[in-house]
Amino acid sequence: MKQHQALAPYLSVHAYGLGDLLEEQARCRPNLTAIVDGAHRFSFQEVDDRVNRLATVLRNHGVGRGDRVLWLGQNSFRVLEALLASARVGAIMCPANWRWSSEEIAFALDDFDPKVVLWQNKDVGEINRGARDAWRPDSNWICHDGCEGETNYEDLIATADPTREFDPVETSKPLLAIYTAGFSGKPGAALLSHESLLIVSWLNQVGQGVTETSGYLVSGPMFHVGVLMGALATFMAGGRNAFVARVDPEELLQIVESEKLTHAFIAPPTIEQMRAINKDGKYDVSSIFRDAQMSDYRIPLVMPGSSPMMSAPGGYGQTEIGGLTITKWMGGEAAGRPSPFLQAKIADDNGEELPIGETGEILARGPLVMCGYWNRPEENARRVVNGWHRTNDLGRRLEDGSIVFVGPKTTMIKSGIENIYPAEVEACLKTHDGVADVCVIGVPDPTWDQNVKAIIVRKPGSEHGPEDFIEHCRQRLASYKKPKIVEFAQALPRGPGGVVDRAKVDQAYGGGGYPKVG
Amino acid sequence: MKQHQALAPYLSVHAYGLGDLLEEQARCRPNLTAIVDGAHRFSFQEVDDRVNRLATVLRNHGVGRGDRVLWLGQNSFRVLEALLASARVGAIMCPANWRWSSEEIAFALDDFDPKVVLWQNKDVGEINRGARDAWRPDSNWICHDGCEGETNYEDLIATADPTREFDPVETSKPLLAIYTAGFSGKPGAALLSHESLLIVSWLNQVGQGVTETSGYLVSGPMFHVGVLMGALATFMAGGRNAFVARVDPEELLQIVESEKLTHAFIAPPTIEQMRAINKDGKYDVSSIFRDAQMSDYRIPLVMPGSSPMMSAPGGYGQTEIGGLTITKWMGGEAAGRPSPFLQAKIADDNGEELPIGETGEILARGPLVMCGYWNRPEENARRVVNGWHRTNDLGRRLEDGSIVFVGPKTTMIKSGIENIYPAEVEACLKTHDGVADVCVIGVPDPTWDQNVKAIIVRKPGSEHGPEDFIEHCRQRLASYKKPKIVEFAQALPRGPGGVVDRAKVDQAYGGGGYPKVG
Repeated sequence: MKQHQALAPYLSVHAYGLGDLLEEQARCRPNLTAIVDGAHRFSFQEVDDRVNRLATVLRNHGVGRGDRVLWLGQNSFRVLEALLASARVGAIMCPANWRWSSEEIAFALDDFDPKVVLWQNKDVGEINRGARDAWRPDSNWICHDGCEGETNYEDLIATADPTREFDPVETSKPLLAIYTAGFSGKPGAALLSHESLLIVSWLNQVGQGVTETSGYLVSGPMFHVGVLMGALATFMAGGRNAFVARVDPEELLQIVESEKLTHAFIAPPTIEQMRAINKDGKYDVSSIFRDAQMSDYRIPLVMPGSSPMMSAPGGYGQTEIGGLTITKWMGGEAAGRPSPFLQAKIADDNGEELPIGETGEILARGPLVMCGYWNRPEENARRVVNGWHRTNDLGRRLEDGSIVFVGPKTTMIKSGIENIYPAEVEACLKTHDGVADVCVIGVPDPTWDQNVKAIIVRKPGSEHGPEDFIEHCRQRLASYKKPKIVEFAQALPRGPGGVVDRAKVDQAYGGGGYPKVG
Repeated sequence: MKQHQALAPYLSVHAYGLGDLLEEQARCRPNLTAIVDGAHRFSFQEVDDRVNRLATVLRNHGVGRGDRVLWLGQNSFRVLEALLASARVGAIMCPANWRWSSEEIAFALDDFDPKVVLWQNKDVGEINRGARDAWRPDSNWICHDGCEGETNYEDLIATADPTREFDPVETSKPLLAIYTAGFSGKPGAALLSHESLLIVSWLNQVGQGVTETSGYLVSGPMFHVGVLMGALATFMAGGRNAFVARVDPEELLQIVESEKLTHAFIAPPTIEQMRAINKDGKYDVSSIFRDAQMSDYRIPLVMPGSSPMMSAPGGYGQTEIGGLTITKWMGGEAAGRPSPFLQAKIADDNGEELPIGETGEILARGPLVMCGYWNRPEENARRVVNGWHRTNDLGRRLEDGSIVFVGPKTTMIKSGIENIYPAEVEACLKTHDGVADVCVIGVPDPTWDQNVKAIIVRKPGSEHGPEDFIEHCRQRLASYKKPKIVEFAQALPRGPGGVVDRAKVDQAYGGGGYPKVG
């Protein structure tokens, strides 16, 4: 006790949140360019000043610790400012998906219950105003891109007090909220803490070789954790973030050339469009691509030079564990290992660790893991077991300790007392050289609840019969997991992004009788 | 409140201490070699098992949260094991300087008050037993290298329960204690937390390009934070740490060859000895040095390849801020910037930030900073100002935001109401091209308390007179800082490590009347 008191003076020394990072950047990299967005161009010192003013604005609107700030708009440097200002006052900031329908916005307003909404007039003004009127017409809405008759962001910033006096925040508390696909039927906002954001930013900074001379093209959606982490990594390194409101291939080419950007997050189809436009080398994009034909690039994290992470891209991630944080970069055979500050294990339904080679749920632990979903007490209780976060995804460990991602746990087949994960059976069947594509479903059975059925698209020339595939699984999986029925198909129905549409497969091939999960 | 409860399940998910790192390494890198020490060779899984047993031993000896474990011996892999086992039970571990005299050991035993002492018999057995008998003959002493009639480390490990069940520890709490030179006349143990050790290890891992194929030669003293951080960085990356009890140049050559080590911490004189022995290329040391003549190396952190940190070595550090954590690696003109998770500012005596260009004390903040000195309530209170740690060192900020280390603040001259730091005046004089060496002292003055006097060793051929040097300072410093008196000398008295012996300079040139600091 005496000793505890002896150390008391140092209790105030250790906090370091996203607001402290900004303060330090303004101090040790004052004149470097932090933000480029259209005609806007701000140094770290200027960003610090603007963010202090915005934090004052938020505080004047009653935003305090744990209160929420919602962004309803496209990409903008003001998303970053809003995140940093929320960090200063201890609030939680959510960049919403600007493609949401009115119904989805209404759901998020009710669910997230923001004290301040930062909204965009251009392109999405009508839908935003409609949502406000239907929710609470008298709530605090601040228009970020200027709109007559409305409360406007730049007006408030210009007149706000640039004080730096804010109470310290608890850095283990949530700062960023990202809505993710719901496992219980409706999306939930995963809450990431200051600590998670800062550690993952550093991981990305190091892994992608970002330095203070780097420039990052923020063209991917900022409601995606990977895009935001790229921006924060660049911010932390002292580099420049160049923002575009939405993806326009020609605009991307222009900005890569004019700002000599070095990093980006661009989807493959956009790269194809950029290549078509630039086939005659109209734009000099050599800061990211090796030639005008843009033949040499890496996606989704485009990276011109070499870096440890990019020389071994891939791995496993989810928003709830801070993004892509179980990575091949960490070594191991054809699989991933957790980043520093993350633990992962493969466990059974009770959270007990499984032996090497067995498929089970990936559990995660450490400061990178989210603080839970906003406003989802039951889901949060269900997703923690013995101090570990259930990812709802399946993995398996190799002898060298690295982890293979097997597939989502969401769809489960129940046969007798056994749980069978289609992803695991599909992964096994894909190792058969006669299989081009496969979907494993459960079909109702009066005795066993369900039987395992595999719908297989054979490779051209394959003469294999059902028994060949069943035997293949018998040798590699616990016997109860092997398909009882195999049916061949010419192709499987697929949805957006090329993912097999399981509902349609069920419908076409007699699937049903699934157990309730969660 | 409702929302706070909603997130409650996740409160148990985020802790990540040094014990968790070990547990994760055993899980995701089970078979890689973690430790090499003479005939001992352990994988991460084996280290995990041994550390669990040692933690049980410590617990059986009554070691719990905040209790201390003292190491009295030379370098050994068991220093690392003791640190990891202390992490498991929440204790604080101190690797003492094995060259300490009986009096110094007696001081540390009284001051640190360890519940368990891990001690070495070889070379230092007699002095250790003497210290025990003079302190508390019935205290818990465990001999690490085997000694008849004593409680022995390996016997206890072999029979202890290998349980993994330990209560979670608070990772912001102290884990490592390192005695540093005291500013108040006696040394104090700086306490570093789990968080500080883990973040700095990662910084070192990245900066030195350590991967799971790296091997680190732990030949520098493990009571030095830089050496320990090298070992922890290697441990975190999944590489091998090769321990030697003490520095023997031939043994170092042998182990570099046999273990193909890639990193080391070797003092320049030792490198010279190694080079002499290896002049005919007897040992293949190409894993660290580019040729047998060992011509191409970097010190103190020897690094064969290139890495961001090593391509710009240097910076500012002290044990109290986790080691070398304001680094040139972070960019800026001929100076350093803080590592991620560290803030630094230049401040006056009241902790108020000074403008760019002015010399003041370097203050630091963030999780890298120590938790205070053990058992030094008054010093701890004195060293914290407005939530910042006073480093007792002087620095100055350049226009680009990077920091120049000026010198220690400890020696201060008082002239009227002004505080003058010799280091700052010396730094100014060293920019004069007639100065080969310089020491600035305070000499007693009846009116002003002290006057500033510079003892200058001129460069060969310099014809400059006293007024030239005084004028040089007048143009560059506040006028009260310039020397009033200049005296020339042939050489300055120097102590161990080549540092100017200020006491001898004072004695020879009339110094005295210094104000009391602290």
